[in-house]
Amino acid sequence: MGWEIVSLVFGAISIGIAAYFFAWTMKQTNGNPVMEEFSKAVQEGAAAYLKRLFQALGLLAGIIAIIILVTLGWQKAVAYLAGAACSASAGYVGMYIATRANARVAWAARQGLKKAFPVGFNAGAVMGFAMVGVALIGMTLIYMIFGSPDVVLGFSFGASSLALLAKAGGGIYTKTADIGADLVGKVEFNLAEDDPRNPAVIADNVGDNVGDVAGMGADIFDSYVASVVAVMVLGYELYSKQADGVNFVVLPLVLGAAGVLSSLIGMLFVRTGEGNDPGRGLNMGTYATTAVFALLTLGIVFMLGFDQPMGIFWPTFAGLVAGIIIGVTSDKFTDIDQQAVQHTANSANTGPALVILDGFSYGLLSIVPSILGICVAMVASWFLAEHFGLAGTYGVSLAAVGMLSITGMVVASDAYGPIVDNAKGCAEAGHENEETIAVCDRLDAAGNTAKAITKGFAIGAAALTVLALFAAYAETVDVNVLDLKTPGVVVGLFLGAIMPPLFSALTILSVSRNAFSMVAEIRRQFREIPGLLEGKAKPDSKRCVDIAARGALKELIIPGLLAFIAPILVGLVLGKNALGGFLAGSIVTGIVFALLMANAGGLWDNAKKFIEDGAHGGKGSEAHKAAVVGDTVGDPFKDTAGPSLNTLITVMSLVATVFGPAITSIALLSL
Amino acid sequence: MGWEIVSLVFGAISIGIAAYFFAWTMKQTNGNPVMEEFSKAVQEGAAAYLKRLFQALGLLAGIIAIIILVTLGWQKAVAYLAGAACSASAGYVGMYIATRANARVAWAARQGLKKAFPVGFNAGAVMGFAMVGVALIGMTLIYMIFGSPDVVLGFSFGASSLALLAKAGGGIYTKTADIGADLVGKVEFNLAEDDPRNPAVIADNVGDNVGDVAGMGADIFDSYVASVVAVMVLGYELYSKQADGVNFVVLPLVLGAAGVLSSLIGMLFVRTGEGNDPGRGLNMGTYATTAVFALLTLGIVFMLGFDQPMGIFWPTFAGLVAGIIIGVTSDKFTDIDQQAVQHTANSANTGPALVILDGFSYGLLSIVPSILGICVAMVASWFLAEHFGLAGTYGVSLAAVGMLSITGMVVASDAYGPIVDNAKGCAEAGHENEETIAVCDRLDAAGNTAKAITKGFAIGAAALTVLALFAAYAETVDVNVLDLKTPGVVVGLFLGAIMPPLFSALTILSVSRNAFSMVAEIRRQFREIPGLLEGKAKPDSKRCVDIAARGALKELIIPGLLAFIAPILVGLVLGKNALGGFLAGSIVTGIVFALLMANAGGLWDNAKKFIEDGAHGGKGSEAHKAAVVGDTVGDPFKDTAGPSLNTLITVMSLVATVFGPAITSIALLSL
Repeated sequence: MGWEIVSLVFGAISIGIAAYFFAWTMKQTNGNPVMEEFSKAVQEGAAAYLKRLFQALGLLAGIIAIIILVTLGWQKAVAYLAGAACSASAGYVGMYIATRANARVAWAARQGLKKAFPVGFNAGAVMGFAMVGVALIGMTLIYMIFGSPDVVLGFSFGASSLALLAKAGGGIYTKTADIGADLVGKVEFNLAEDDPRNPAVIADNVGDNVGDVAGMGADIFDSYVASVVAVMVLGYELYSKQADGVNFVVLPLVLGAAGVLSSLIGMLFVRTGEGNDPGRGLNMGTYATTAVFALLTLGIVFMLGFDQPMGIFWPTFAGLVAGIIIGVTSDKFTDIDQQAVQHTANSANTGPALVILDGFSYGLLSIVPSILGICVAMVASWFLAEHFGLAGTYGVSLAAVGMLSITGMVVASDAYGPIVDNAKGCAEAGHENEETIAVCDRLDAAGNTAKAITKGFAIGAAALTVLALFAAYAETVDVNVLDLKTPGVVVGLFLGAIMPPLFSALTILSVSRNAFSMVAEIRRQFREIPGLLEGKAKPDSKRCVDIAARGALKELIIPGLLAFIAPILVGLVLGKNALGGFLAGSIVTGIVFALLMANAGGLWDNAKKFIEDGAHGGKGSEAHKAAVVGDTVGDPFKDTAGPSLNTLITVMSLVATVFGPAITSIALLSL
Repeated sequence: MGWEIVSLVFGAISIGIAAYFFAWTMKQTNGNPVMEEFSKAVQEGAAAYLKRLFQALGLLAGIIAIIILVTLGWQKAVAYLAGAACSASAGYVGMYIATRANARVAWAARQGLKKAFPVGFNAGAVMGFAMVGVALIGMTLIYMIFGSPDVVLGFSFGASSLALLAKAGGGIYTKTADIGADLVGKVEFNLAEDDPRNPAVIADNVGDNVGDVAGMGADIFDSYVASVVAVMVLGYELYSKQADGVNFVVLPLVLGAAGVLSSLIGMLFVRTGEGNDPGRGLNMGTYATTAVFALLTLGIVFMLGFDQPMGIFWPTFAGLVAGIIIGVTSDKFTDIDQQAVQHTANSANTGPALVILDGFSYGLLSIVPSILGICVAMVASWFLAEHFGLAGTYGVSLAAVGMLSITGMVVASDAYGPIVDNAKGCAEAGHENEETIAVCDRLDAAGNTAKAITKGFAIGAAALTVLALFAAYAETVDVNVLDLKTPGVVVGLFLGAIMPPLFSALTILSVSRNAFSMVAEIRRQFREIPGLLEGKAKPDSKRCVDIAARGALKELIIPGLLAFIAPILVGLVLGKNALGGFLAGSIVTGIVFALLMANAGGLWDNAKKFIEDGAHGGKGSEAHKAAVVGDTVGDPFKDTAGPSLNTLITVMSLVATVFGPAITSIALLSL
């Protein structure tokens, strides 16, 4: 027994904090009956979808667990199932509270910003702290029971498997509903966003919860766990023979505990006044958490008695700083006050084509600063570690943990976004007055401001995590060199490079196909339900919810299988060098496309908002119609394909690391 | 003196063939006075632009030549200038004949397909044979004079520098004019394509010539030369100490000679009857050329007396086969009769957003078969070479030469496309009857059919060429291993990976910016020139031509400089391993984005045509308007950014190889 006890204790504290905020949120007034009805419909839709999703994923997880059981032993199979279950439960809790907080935020908004803001944020914090707690306890227990980071790798694999499908499925669901609702409701019938006459509004709001809350939660859970596990595995491979070797393994668990404490302190800084921008409050919280975490890390590295404490501290710190820099710079391409968004909005005067071209181009440009940030973080953490006599790869893995340790705070800010977005839907459904809806609008805008920073952390951390996993792969399968001059590595590189585009194509086509069915259904309802458009009859929302859910699950099968089978095939047929090249190729194009899609999507969204705020003729103008096309194209970019890519490359790295030793030893060729 | 004499002789023969077809084409009737006037306006616009372009490039080439002179010696500086001059002259000849053939094809179309088709094809053949002849003579002379493949590398660098700027500049020019003409003429005033009232029609037709003829010509010239030089450099580095070493160096020159002969024989198979599809005629010519070239290669490898003749033959043959396979499979994503195009056209019923999403997704999917084809070609040629005791890298470089040796035929088919496209413009301007215009339409469609196969060759060959150049870089700077486990290589990989997206973004934004000015100018003319819309007054075409030309040149500066400076900076700061990683990264994303953009653009174009052929309400329907948006987005994808990327990665590989030894030896860091 050693320092891992600290991690267990803070894991429990984290869950305690989540429970406290849960109870606090549930005690708030649940809105008027119309809001309650709306909220209830969303709750039922979300719960029904997650139930079906988890049933399907349970089956898949069972099959994979059996494969692991047969090939790698029961310990890893158990760890795998535990990881999947923890990830699922964190997502479920987030969804549960989010779908109950929406009406409560809407009701509180009647009393102004100052009253409503904490409801949204505390509900988000439930998910943040629950997730960190579950992850810390899960990883620590698995490590304590089995005593090997290798088994914890199984836990991470379980979490990632679930995250990939939860994220991609949620992304397909939410955009099917969103695009369907927009194309018919907004464009054809000129209804406002969230107009209750639109049959797809409930599905759209369910989508926000299963995609942006549950999916995002599973995704960050996965990155968080993977970053910790990468440090544990590398620490074990590199230092287990040293006297203080175990400290290199448990270090990330202790850093996780420090993350809980710093997030809790950081939350005290999240406050807003009636006239202030609540987005600044969220960012203040993030900055405070970061500062506290840096200080705690400094204490920990001395407390654990490393020979070279600063060799641990500086790489971790480099990760933290890089996360903020990436967030701030990529914000330049998506912020509504910046030139990129406004230039694109201006192009809308010539129709949709230049909107698409501009947004796509700025999306491509936005890759540059983020990748430079990742490169600097990687090189800095590598050489800082080497400078103090530690392995460079270990330094890189610490930078990833540095970024992700403040996950509690990041997730709280992130989950806040869809919760207040939904609150606006509730307020519209409840026929609240202009003022209340304006409060909801401001809450919503704050979510977007905060998103820039948290997205920077998510992208940077995912990149560094997969680089650390890549190193872990190389250590576990004993690759000496991965020489780009050999055909095996080059072929692997190319094969890996096509995975993210392929995965993106399949998920976007899924959205397009489902949205097509949704459009047909919405048109049918307006045609066949008398009085619907006049507001005298209710739409059949359940059918729309059902189309979104069924479609999302069906469409998941092929891209999901691909992520698991492709690395195994490459390893089995082409051998371990090609598999190494494969991971590198997938990481490169994965990050490139993830950034492109996330930022282009965000930019289009804001260009539309900029016009809706009154520029170029405002709502209803030709420019606005053109900008709506951009926004619709951006939807699956930023909410379906883009954010799934991080998880895709994590899953493939884990598949390669977990199965690598077994499969590459029996490879057909060995290029 | 040895086998290189064969190359010189066939180079001269190739130029003779070009001269013959030139004279033949010029002898054809030049159309009626209106056509002549139209054709003359295009000639003047194209010549004026190329003059300005070459003046600007002359300055740039001069500066680079001085840098080479100072750092690498006068021989390479001379070779560099010769390469640039040869590339420019090949492009100029192509443009010259293309702008004179258009009216002649249009006039011949009055007498039917059978009469018009050879005029278009023979004019294309002028460029094909002129280019191959100039390239062979240039490379052979430089090699004979200086006796070192290293100096020929300078020639290739000159050709590539010019190609990059000619291609990107032409691409910006042509799409500025095209988008401008479409957005105002087609969308706002409902004019047909090439309606002479549209002020941008001349600029649009000039654009076809400077972009699709001169730019494409320079681009293929560059690939052709680079592939030959890569074999020469690798042959020299690997085998110069062997007794028959020189044969490994001159081999690609002799294969080039065989390419001339096979293209000439292949041309005999290019014929069409009145009722036939001329596209099949073009493809027959390509297939015949390929077969003859394979036979000739078999003869050559024995004639040159290699120890392992089949070790030379099989990799070359693998390249040929892969080229055809890549062309045929990528055709599935862009052909008007295939599911991808028709599905996208169907989505147009819901508006432009799903058209964009579908086309983009199919573009992403289209990456898969082409990259698989490249991988198979690479692995096959590598192991076939190794099987016979030759170096694998040499085998890969042979596969590239195999694909490109039939360049004469490929360019002839490729240049045919814009020539007959222009002929249609002439026919419209000359108020020809429906029947003649229908003949022009069928000629145009044939160009698209042929393009699929030739594009396969271009992409596959470019990929294998840069892989060969990558190997040449590693040989010349003496890199032992490029280990993906080291931070330098990984950072290089990421930095290289951002270059193609960055270059694409800059060029697409250029198009968007220029098109914006063009739209304003066209609107101004319709507003201010009385009687223009009624056809009673003439538009001020010159102003539009001027906007396109000035814009294209100005916008070239930043992306152009980037291509030269980035690899030098990486080499100077981070050292040779990082520069190796940089090249690999740029190759991976370069090929991915080139395929995505070329195929998505082609698909959108055909989805629009599918609707224009009568589907989903045909021309003027809402679906058609949505499809036009897709087509407009696709324009700079397929004609500006996409095709420039091949050249970009070739230029960067050449910069690295030419300057690598000098700069990496004084690198600041050596990661």
